[in-house]
Amino acid sequence: MSTRLSQLFVRTLREDPSDAEVTSHRLLVRAGYIRRQAPGIFAWLPLGLRVKAKIEAIIRDEMTAAGAQEVHFPALLPREPYEATGRWTEYGEGMFRLQDRKDTDYLLAPTHEEAFTLLVKDLYSSYKDLPLTLFQIQDKYRDEARPRAGLLRGREFTMKDAYSFDSSDAGLDASYQLQRDAYERIFAKLGLSYVIVKADAGAMGGSKSEEFLHPMEAGEDTFVRSAGGYAANVEAFTTIVPDEIALEGLAEATLLDPHDTPTIATLVEHLNATQPRDAGEWTASETLKNVIVALTHLDGTREIIALGLPGDRDVDMKRVEVAFYPAEVEAAGEADFAKNPLLVKGYIGPQVLGSESESGIRYYVDPRVVSGSSWVTGANEDGVHVRDLVMGRDFAADGVYEIAQVREGDPAPDGSGPIETARGMEIGHVFQLGRKFADALGLKVLDENGKQVTVTMGSYGIGVTRILAVIAESNNDDKGLIWPDNVAPFDVHVVATGKDAVVYEVAEELVSALEGARLDVLFDDRPKVSPGVKFGDAELLGVPQIVVVGRSAGEGIVELWDRRTGERTPVPVAEAVAALTTR
Amino acid sequence: MSTRLSQLFVRTLREDPSDAEVTSHRLLVRAGYIRRQAPGIFAWLPLGLRVKAKIEAIIRDEMTAAGAQEVHFPALLPREPYEATGRWTEYGEGMFRLQDRKDTDYLLAPTHEEAFTLLVKDLYSSYKDLPLTLFQIQDKYRDEARPRAGLLRGREFTMKDAYSFDSSDAGLDASYQLQRDAYERIFAKLGLSYVIVKADAGAMGGSKSEEFLHPMEAGEDTFVRSAGGYAANVEAFTTIVPDEIALEGLAEATLLDPHDTPTIATLVEHLNATQPRDAGEWTASETLKNVIVALTHLDGTREIIALGLPGDRDVDMKRVEVAFYPAEVEAAGEADFAKNPLLVKGYIGPQVLGSESESGIRYYVDPRVVSGSSWVTGANEDGVHVRDLVMGRDFAADGVYEIAQVREGDPAPDGSGPIETARGMEIGHVFQLGRKFADALGLKVLDENGKQVTVTMGSYGIGVTRILAVIAESNNDDKGLIWPDNVAPFDVHVVATGKDAVVYEVAEELVSALEGARLDVLFDDRPKVSPGVKFGDAELLGVPQIVVVGRSAGEGIVELWDRRTGERTPVPVAEAVAALTTR
Repeated sequence: MSTRLSQLFVRTLREDPSDAEVTSHRLLVRAGYIRRQAPGIFAWLPLGLRVKAKIEAIIRDEMTAAGAQEVHFPALLPREPYEATGRWTEYGEGMFRLQDRKDTDYLLAPTHEEAFTLLVKDLYSSYKDLPLTLFQIQDKYRDEARPRAGLLRGREFTMKDAYSFDSSDAGLDASYQLQRDAYERIFAKLGLSYVIVKADAGAMGGSKSEEFLHPMEAGEDTFVRSAGGYAANVEAFTTIVPDEIALEGLAEATLLDPHDTPTIATLVEHLNATQPRDAGEWTASETLKNVIVALTHLDGTREIIALGLPGDRDVDMKRVEVAFYPAEVEAAGEADFAKNPLLVKGYIGPQVLGSESESGIRYYVDPRVVSGSSWVTGANEDGVHVRDLVMGRDFAADGVYEIAQVREGDPAPDGSGPIETARGMEIGHVFQLGRKFADALGLKVLDENGKQVTVTMGSYGIGVTRILAVIAESNNDDKGLIWPDNVAPFDVHVVATGKDAVVYEVAEELVSALEGARLDVLFDDRPKVSPGVKFGDAELLGVPQIVVVGRSAGEGIVELWDRRTGERTPVPVAEAVAALTTR
Repeated sequence: MSTRLSQLFVRTLREDPSDAEVTSHRLLVRAGYIRRQAPGIFAWLPLGLRVKAKIEAIIRDEMTAAGAQEVHFPALLPREPYEATGRWTEYGEGMFRLQDRKDTDYLLAPTHEEAFTLLVKDLYSSYKDLPLTLFQIQDKYRDEARPRAGLLRGREFTMKDAYSFDSSDAGLDASYQLQRDAYERIFAKLGLSYVIVKADAGAMGGSKSEEFLHPMEAGEDTFVRSAGGYAANVEAFTTIVPDEIALEGLAEATLLDPHDTPTIATLVEHLNATQPRDAGEWTASETLKNVIVALTHLDGTREIIALGLPGDRDVDMKRVEVAFYPAEVEAAGEADFAKNPLLVKGYIGPQVLGSESESGIRYYVDPRVVSGSSWVTGANEDGVHVRDLVMGRDFAADGVYEIAQVREGDPAPDGSGPIETARGMEIGHVFQLGRKFADALGLKVLDENGKQVTVTMGSYGIGVTRILAVIAESNNDDKGLIWPDNVAPFDVHVVATGKDAVVYEVAEELVSALEGARLDVLFDDRPKVSPGVKFGDAELLGVPQIVVVGRSAGEGIVELWDRRTGERTPVPVAEAVAALTTR
């Protein structure tokens, strides 16, 4: 098949769109692949749609090969099932909600766990019907607070979402592995490098959860990895927990003389100056920092809580969000302190924290704050600190959460060495939902013994439109896009230059011959456009193989131009087809 | 490719769904093609999705062959462009509206005229860029008052919508014809008979407008046709207008004596009894019936108007709706009469009607009420009629509209003879929007003389999901569906029956051979299911060619079963592939 550029609905732009923050957005708009309709909402022009269809075909083939069956759900869904699972409320402002003419509540589905669960419940009833994996390639909606970066984080976007159904945990493990393997094949075919990281299951609940991250600077996720093979996103990284220490024989807590040490650094300096010891210099990691944050619960109530962690680390608010999901989290403000006079800013100590304490403020600690660990911390009096305050003896916590910053050099939890951090973009997510949705919606089957058992589910997502942007983000140069062969909008871009009739005759023949060889050809047949503009367009559009039919056409010579390497090779026109098809 | 029924996500149902009013809905649900999610909103199961994809592929091929280019717009669109064309308001309750987290108004697009217009404006600027025809196959949303009949009238449905852009009227005519021809080819390929009827352009404005109607009893449209080839939907049918009559010499209007004739029939009887004449018996067609209807305008105001038409016809409220679009129309109620004491029920005459009259009530007449025509009608006094009341002399109207019932036997407006009426379902619509949208949104291009001209547009729609239902509606019997070959979910359905190992061996070999011949095969490999159930399922699912591998398999004989004719033919298994591929 061939398409003439003179007829193609495209207009390349010299200027970057004013709202484009990332390369893929900039180039996809300039090259006429997509066009903005509203924040985070795009129209697909013919070139963009071709690339999108190729990506979808690759995903569909691998899903089918992995035994998943394609279905298609509506985007517009009724409220009730999402109410039953709690997501109607939990999703907060991120979900588009609307009412029909009868004032019945609907939503535009952000994901379809509920609908898939109910469909299987509707049709299946026995363990013999399982395992089952269903998928769809479908447009989803999320009302992002900050839609950004073009297709990387849109509000209407195409996703492949798959769901597995099993009657046993072992079955779920097998279904999960099949999907995980399929994802590896899909990303390999798409030429996308990836790191599989342990992920927090977040809003979905559930247990085993892994993200496929494509390492890239413009990525939204920070992940950590060790040379020994450990990889996790920061939210899922776990701290190696030190052993507990027996309480007997530990030094008594001692108040230090009042002093003005408003920061951890000045406190450590003060300790080294006034509390010398044989065990070496005091360090910030021996101090216990107590940070007050405010939670806004789903019902709108505001609660302040305290977080205790070693003084050499900051609180990571993203990790706090995960820990206290679905509540919203923010730093406590002056008003919060004013209401809680027991909290002495700069000198907060855990003696007055915890739901059983005088303040009643819930108190959660970093995993390093084990029973028997001794700390220098605030004494809840201006200017006063206390040393040798012991966890489990002098104070207690309501629980332990991963709320501290993760740092390069921290030890990987699996003992595979120190970690480094990198930026990546989530391109796929596989995880075990378990029985959360099946429980909420009553999806049970009869097992071998005729007993009702709740089905266990997995959920597997790939952001189709995001992947297109990620490919563009990782395949370009300063001239424009450079598509990998198997997702390029065309196989070959034939550029006819100059005004000689022979050029166009040779080009037409070549295009026919390429079509005969089953290649998809874009033919720049525009008669009154300069060679410079045509070359610039070819570079911007990014078809990987370009053929220039120019002044040597009369002698039967054309030029093969590799878009990625920039290499230009004259070949006899008779050999061009063979050269282009054997690649 | 082959699919094993033991693995396929499907469950056939013996019972009709309780909400199914039409055959297609009933069978598509029972055979496991679709599943209801909400009123007018369905999920597509694997079988349904396969048929839908085949229909889409046929449409896409023909659109591309006709030079249209595929794009894809979001369903979620901002309010502003629809505000500019007036459709945000005009669409009334039929449009789903919502707000994002910033309270910005959005809609789920019912059609995309605005978005296409703006996209072309965005990229193109010269007559040289035109003609251009773009299309998409995309999910649309309409908040139907009464979603019904399964896929025939849904609230979320798939449409192919195309739009043409030309710089001249002649160009639009050519683009229109190309699309019209493509539609004829599409419906031929889909095996759908159709009648092309003149249509009212309705909500879209514009001029030339034709609908493709598939004749069927469950259809929503009444259309008329003549033996001479005229066809139109009832809303678009036009009355042959009689010649005007000179006013000079016409008999004076005369009040009749009071009499109790509450109906047209009793009035005619009374006329023949008391007003004998040489010209023959009086007929109802000589009386002028005046009907009061209430309009509710977009701004919510209620207005009553009067409609005058020959007494032998009723008002057709659907035609009135078209005439007074976008106002809503209903019969006037007691309260309306109470507020207008000049209107004497049963004896309303046009002497007190019209915006210039005493009542100020706007008055519109049927085209037969020409200047100089004489009528027997009410005298606005209880029990009193008047005869020889002459249009243009004794009363006036504010305008002429087609508001009367169309009847079998009425003459076709093109002189091709009397019409008959039939029921049909709209499966396609082609029409010339003209410059309405381009005007409202400022889509202009430079013409040959460097002058700005407004672009003229056409709009071309096919309801993909509706067509699937229409095909099902027209291709079934009491046992189930019978798909036409080129949209069937599979080419062949192989049914293995019995418990002999040889049956399954022969069946497996046959399936492999059919796959080798590039046929899509559904293989009923279920070991513990009775032949009766398998045959019933095969009939319900409706794959057009069935092969039964049963007790003669050991002797190398299988049975070809034509689902449509019911014919069953034993053939040697070695010949089965050839027989099935040559069909």
